[in-house]
Amino acid sequence: MSEPLRPAPLRLGIAGLGTVGTGVLKILRKEAAMLSARTGREITVSAVSARNRGKDRGISLDSYAWEDDPVALATRDDVDVFVELMGGSDGPAKAATEAALKAGKDVVTANKAMLAIHGQALAELAEDAGRVIRFEAAVAGGIPVVKSLTEGLAGNRIQRVIGVMNGTCNYILTRMQSAGLPYDIVFQEAADLGYLEADPQLDVGGIDAGHKLALLASVAFGTRVSFDAMELEGIGRITIDDIRAAEDMGYRIKLLGVSQMTGRGLEQRMAPCLVPATSPLGQLEGGTNMVVLEGDAVGQIVLRGAGAGEGPTASAVLGDLCDIARGFRLPVFGQPAASLEDAVPATSTTPAPYYVRLTLQDKPGALAKIATVLGEAGVSIHRMRQYDHTGGRAPVLIVTHKTQRKLLDEALVAMTGTGVVEGDPVALRIETV
Amino acid sequence: MSEPLRPAPLRLGIAGLGTVGTGVLKILRKEAAMLSARTGREITVSAVSARNRGKDRGISLDSYAWEDDPVALATRDDVDVFVELMGGSDGPAKAATEAALKAGKDVVTANKAMLAIHGQALAELAEDAGRVIRFEAAVAGGIPVVKSLTEGLAGNRIQRVIGVMNGTCNYILTRMQSAGLPYDIVFQEAADLGYLEADPQLDVGGIDAGHKLALLASVAFGTRVSFDAMELEGIGRITIDDIRAAEDMGYRIKLLGVSQMTGRGLEQRMAPCLVPATSPLGQLEGGTNMVVLEGDAVGQIVLRGAGAGEGPTASAVLGDLCDIARGFRLPVFGQPAASLEDAVPATSTTPAPYYVRLTLQDKPGALAKIATVLGEAGVSIHRMRQYDHTGGRAPVLIVTHKTQRKLLDEALVAMTGTGVVEGDPVALRIETV
Repeated sequence: MSEPLRPAPLRLGIAGLGTVGTGVLKILRKEAAMLSARTGREITVSAVSARNRGKDRGISLDSYAWEDDPVALATRDDVDVFVELMGGSDGPAKAATEAALKAGKDVVTANKAMLAIHGQALAELAEDAGRVIRFEAAVAGGIPVVKSLTEGLAGNRIQRVIGVMNGTCNYILTRMQSAGLPYDIVFQEAADLGYLEADPQLDVGGIDAGHKLALLASVAFGTRVSFDAMELEGIGRITIDDIRAAEDMGYRIKLLGVSQMTGRGLEQRMAPCLVPATSPLGQLEGGTNMVVLEGDAVGQIVLRGAGAGEGPTASAVLGDLCDIARGFRLPVFGQPAASLEDAVPATSTTPAPYYVRLTLQDKPGALAKIATVLGEAGVSIHRMRQYDHTGGRAPVLIVTHKTQRKLLDEALVAMTGTGVVEGDPVALRIETV
Repeated sequence: MSEPLRPAPLRLGIAGLGTVGTGVLKILRKEAAMLSARTGREITVSAVSARNRGKDRGISLDSYAWEDDPVALATRDDVDVFVELMGGSDGPAKAATEAALKAGKDVVTANKAMLAIHGQALAELAEDAGRVIRFEAAVAGGIPVVKSLTEGLAGNRIQRVIGVMNGTCNYILTRMQSAGLPYDIVFQEAADLGYLEADPQLDVGGIDAGHKLALLASVAFGTRVSFDAMELEGIGRITIDDIRAAEDMGYRIKLLGVSQMTGRGLEQRMAPCLVPATSPLGQLEGGTNMVVLEGDAVGQIVLRGAGAGEGPTASAVLGDLCDIARGFRLPVFGQPAASLEDAVPATSTTPAPYYVRLTLQDKPGALAKIATVLGEAGVSIHRMRQYDHTGGRAPVLIVTHKTQRKLLDEALVAMTGTGVVEGDPVALRIETV
C-alpha cells in the first residue's frame, strides 16, 4: 500500500506584528511539529507585514518575505490564509481583508471593530468567493466561545448570551472596589499600566465590549450583526459611592453585555449592571472574561478565561488556523450570510430589578415623597436604605422589584420634580444570572 | 448560474432510546429546519433500535424503521452515522460500534466506559476505515470540552486538566455538607431519586468520572487512553466529620479528577480532594460539572455546565452530528491513533498540601508524638487544630505544607505505631486551582 499523499502546507501571510502577531509567530515556530501532528498538515509563514519593519520583536523575521503593504501581502500567490492582526474597523485592515477574499484566500482575524461594523458585507464577500473568515480571537481572548456557539451548541436555540468581555473595564471596577479609589485615579492607573486603547472610549465607553457582544449575538441568534442597534453605556459615570453602595447591598458592578432574543425583538445592551457579589460574574476579578451561554437543550454553560494578552489571543488565532488546516469550513456567522435575519431591535427591555442611588435633602417628608413617586409610577420597592445626613444631605439606596425600565425612567423624572432630590439619581439594572 | 447541488441528507441510525436517545430524536424533529440551515444539510433518522419497542417514550417511532439488533441497525445501507446511546463497555454497544465502522459508518457515542477501555482499538479501527468516532456527550454532558481541547486549544500544550465530572457524587457531597447528613443516608436519598447507576460503584467508586478523565487526558496530552493506570478512589469513605472539618478549615470536599503531564510521566487521579470553599470548584453545587483546562498559551480556561440529563447530553450528541453534517473530520482523539504515545504513568505524585484527620487518645504528650512523627518523616505542618476531648478521644485536624504523598504515607504508618491514635487517620489531598 502506498503512503497517503501528505497535503501541501497551509501558507500564511500575517499582517500586524504587535503582541498578538508576534505571539502567533512564536507558537508557529516552536510548535511546528505538534501542529502538524494535530492537523495532518504543516502550517508555514510565507510573508509578514507591519508598520515598523525594524522594531525589535524578540524574534527574527529573516525567514519570511516582507511586504510594506498589507494588501500586497494578502494577495500573494504563496499565501493561503491572510491573518489580519492590525486592528481598526476600516483602513488597511478592511482593504486587505477584502483583497484577500477576492484573491481566494481564507481570513483569520482578531478584529472585532471591523466585523461588528462590516461583518455582513464581509461575510457575503467571503461566501461568494467560497472562502471563510474566522474570528475566535476577536471575542473574549482565549475562550473558545464562537466555536462553542456555532459548533458545540449547534443543536440549541440560544436564548441569552451574557458576558464580561472588557478586561480593562473589569480591572478598573474591581480596583475601585478593592482599593476604595475614585474612578479618575484608577483610570489614570490603567492608562499608566498600558491597559487602555489609544482611544480610551473604546474601553471605558463600552464600545470594544459592544463590538464583541454584537458578534456573539449574530452567531447566537442567526441575525445580521447590528452593532448600531446596541444600547451602549460606559463605566465613566460609575462613582466610588456606587461601588460601595452596591457592595453594601450584596452586589458588584460589572460592565455587562446581555443579548437576548425576545418576543419583542432582539435585546442587545452593554452597560454597567449590578450582579450578586457571590455569583460567578460577581466574583470575576481583573482582566478575566466570562461568558454565559443559555440554550434550550443545554441549559446554562459558563466559560471563563483570560480575555486578552499575547498567549490567550494567539491561542485563539491558532485554533482558527488549525481548523482551516484540518479543512473545517463553515459560514462566517455559523450559517450562510444570506440566511441571517435582520435583527429587529427590541421595543422594550426585559423587566428587571433596578438599583437607584439618590441624594435626599434634609426636609421633612422627603423620603415619603420619593416612595410615593415610585409607587405612582408603578415601581415597587424591594429594599430601601437611608443613610446618615451629612451637611443636610442623605444618601438613599433603593432596590426595586422587577420593573420596566420605562416606568422607572418616568419615576426618575418625577423624582427630580419633587424638589427634595440633589442632582440626578443614578439607576443601574440588576442582572440575575 | 445554476443552484449549487444540495448535499444528500445525513441519515442516522440511533441505538438506545432512553432519556438521551429520546432527547436526540425530539430535537431532530422539532429543529429540522434550524439544523439544516446551520449545517447546509438535512439530518434524518432512518432507523432506531432499543431493548423495548413498546415502551411509551412520549414520541412516536412510526416514521423510523425498527431493528431489534443494534448490529443490524449499525450496518443498514440507509444509515450514514451510527448513534450509539446504549452504554456498557462491551456487549452490544461495542459489537455494533465495530460493525458500524467496518461498514463505513461514522459513529457518535455517549459511551465513556467503552471508549475508556477500548478507545485505542476503536480509534485504530475507525481510522483504518476512514471513519470518525465523536464522543462529546461522553464527557461532562453538555459542556463542549472535547471540542475545546481538540480544536479551540489546538495551539496549546495542555499542562493540566482538572474536573468535577460526576454529578451524583457532587450531589451526595454537597447534600451531606448542606444538610449535615451522613453518607449512608444521602446515598440512599440519591438512590431513591434515581441518581445512581444500576451499579452504584460506577458513580460513588469514581469509575464513571475516571472514564471521563481518561478520555480527556488522551485528547489533552496526545496519549493512548489508559484508564487502567488511573489512581482511583471513591467517595464511600468520606464521613460527615470530614465534610465538617474541611468546612471548618475553609475547604470543601469534591470528587476531583486531575490529569497532568509531568517530567515523571502522566499523572491521572480521580479521588476526593479538598478545594478552597470560595473557589469556583468549591462553589460547585449539585449535579453541575466543571472542567478546568490549563494550556501554555491560553492560561486557564474554566468550563461549567450541566453534566448529565436529557437536554445537555442530547445537545452534545447534536453538536457532534452537526460537525459530521458539515464535513468536519478529525481523528478520534484529535491526532492519528498511531501517533498517540503510550502514557507512562507518573512514578510519583506532584507534591501538594494534605488534610489529615485523626482521633487522638487523651494521653499526656499525645499531640507532641504526632507532631514529632510528621517532622521525622519530613512533613511540615501548616495548620493544626485539636478539638475538645469527648469520652477520652480528641479529633485532630492537620493541614500540611506541600509534601510528597509517599512521605505522608510513611508518617501515617508511623502515627498508628505511636499507640496514641484511634483507628486509621484519614488523609486527603488539597488541590489548589
